[in-house]
Amino acid sequence: MSQPSVHHDSFTIERTFAATPERVFAAFADPVKKRRWFVEGEGWTVDSYEADFREGGFERSRFRFNDGPEMTNETYYHDIIPGRRIINSYSMTWGGKRISVSLATVDIEPDGAGSRVRFTEQAVFFEGSDGVEGRRQGWTELIGKLEEELTTHP
Amino acid sequence: MSQPSVHHDSFTIERTFAATPERVFAAFADPVKKRRWFVEGEGWTVDSYEADFREGGFERSRFRFNDGPEMTNETYYHDIIPGRRIINSYSMTWGGKRISVSLATVDIEPDGAGSRVRFTEQAVFFEGSDGVEGRRQGWTELIGKLEEELTTHP
Repeated sequence: MSQPSVHHDSFTIERTFAATPERVFAAFADPVKKRRWFVEGEGWTVDSYEADFREGGFERSRFRFNDGPEMTNETYYHDIIPGRRIINSYSMTWGGKRISVSLATVDIEPDGAGSRVRFTEQAVFFEGSDGVEGRRQGWTELIGKLEEELTTHP
Repeated sequence: MSQPSVHHDSFTIERTFAATPERVFAAFADPVKKRRWFVEGEGWTVDSYEADFREGGFERSRFRFNDGPEMTNETYYHDIIPGRRIINSYSMTWGGKRISVSLATVDIEPDGAGSRVRFTEQAVFFEGSDGVEGRRQGWTELIGKLEEELTTHP
């Protein structure tokens, strides 16, 4: 029996933040804020980062962890509702090889004085990817960095 | 309890065709062939169709069924392996309103003298969409048209 060349999977992470929906949205929309929590970090080198946050715009970054191979992220924004919703698709490469293509939804709602955010990723993983559990772990770390961004840059 | 503004779902349709993987791939890659089975059809009016089939290229179409509202499809090609795999993301509008964003995988394998093809769609549906069952039905019809294209234009 033959095998498909890809593996499909998905996950949702739901979190609440003390920040308003407008502030959570701004952490994605403002390229200075987004770069700070999304690509910067201890041990990471950012080779390039460019963001055009609008429907039909691209965000492209190249980065590496310590002496590891270069990774790239190319994101295309399909659907944006300010303060409410962001839907993009993105592909990642590792050492020059494509490892995944994903459809990502950020769904933001008011929750008391703060926000409830659902991060949903529907993805196609290729050979050489660490698959859905690695991706979920990566997003869990990124959401922690987003929370730190919201706390330290009010 | 608040509700997300979107609904996520996915499906896979597996089919075998008498045509080789190269011929199935060409029905997606060649804009003359693709237009014939993907947007043309009895009762359909094609207002525009442009295709740039390459990684990083867009395919955009505007069409309507009988006197219905205009529908649009904007497709972005993330990953292409000739004769083997096509991964794109696409958004659809109906009467000027976005109804869905999808990640679509076409996985093609040899199967005897023909091909086995897995169509996988991972999608986000918005209010006003007929959801995953309508989309699966739409793809079932399109796959029938693809089969007709492979039979009538060998």
